[in-house]
Amino acid sequence: METSVYVGTSLDGFLARKDGDIEWLEQFADEDAMRSYEEFMNKIDAIVIGRGTYEKVLTFPTWPYNKEVFVLSTSIKKVPDTLKSKASMLSGRPVEILNFLSGKGFSRIYLDGGKVIQSFLTEDLVDELIIATVPILIGSGIPLFGILKNDLQFNLIRTESFSNGLVRSYYKRERDPNRNMTGH
Amino acid sequence: METSVYVGTSLDGFLARKDGDIEWLEQFADEDAMRSYEEFMNKIDAIVIGRGTYEKVLTFPTWPYNKEVFVLSTSIKKVPDTLKSKASMLSGRPVEILNFLSGKGFSRIYLDGGKVIQSFLTEDLVDELIIATVPILIGSGIPLFGILKNDLQFNLIRTESFSNGLVRSYYKRERDPNRNMTGH
Repeated sequence: METSVYVGTSLDGFLARKDGDIEWLEQFADEDAMRSYEEFMNKIDAIVIGRGTYEKVLTFPTWPYNKEVFVLSTSIKKVPDTLKSKASMLSGRPVEILNFLSGKGFSRIYLDGGKVIQSFLTEDLVDELIIATVPILIGSGIPLFGILKNDLQFNLIRTESFSNGLVRSYYKRERDPNRNMTGH
Repeated sequence: METSVYVGTSLDGFLARKDGDIEWLEQFADEDAMRSYEEFMNKIDAIVIGRGTYEKVLTFPTWPYNKEVFVLSTSIKKVPDTLKSKASMLSGRPVEILNFLSGKGFSRIYLDGGKVIQSFLTEDLVDELIIATVPILIGSGIPLFGILKNDLQFNLIRTESFSNGLVRSYYKRERDPNRNMTGH
């Protein structure tokens, strides 16, 4: 079981404006960014999003995900009939969600949306962070990160930067530094 | 007149913990990081810090700055006699501070401390941002960025990444995109 986050953020750490607007971010969605995101998505077998992301995505002209989607919500109980083969609703704590998905045979989980990401980070249940930072400060909005119980140390795997100003960094959670140090 | 920010931050955008602790950050202050900071400091001719940074720095075994320091504070009126040749107190709005420093013949200003950085960013008075991001989430603390009046777009000049996981990105404020586009 591996959980991944792949997000675009402003330089001040926001995923979207308060009203969900991401126009400032979309100007950086060039061919390279799309290819990188597709490569990532090809390795994923299920997607977990929150209600906010779900409602945003419903306003898109087409359903953007090509893997099975699980929407975390306590208020919405079912998806429209047209989405029945693509998405289903779930509720529960992050560890319960992962146990459920594991039981269904999923092993590479993509977490999306500020609240979902924060709730899994709080439980130290995020294994991979891929963060594409765009060179703009927007001042306020929906934050990527939130309060934690403990510090979480990551390993930087690699960083890529692009002429449009986007910097993409790949991190893996460093869960047991002693094991890494003696593992060579 | 050029203003620069050079900071180390956690992956979630904090300069220090709430109590000012930066031990989590200092583990990344290796030889390369020190050299980079020294190179930056050599190009600077005055430093503007806030009261929080000033009080933190007073707890250090030695005064860490080798350029003239101006401390922004409305509550503290004078520095101890031992610091008289190194630091002085100032108060005023960011634009007044820059006019004062310009009148004194300074032209390359280093801004340090969360509140100082935020107050100058709010007035769009930051020309250069150098951000060294370390691969650790600390969950809460003194934030680098705050609320703005307007979006601020920057140009990415370059990004460097290091085996200890530090990623350092150099940004310059993009003040007039039309001029850049027709300037070639």
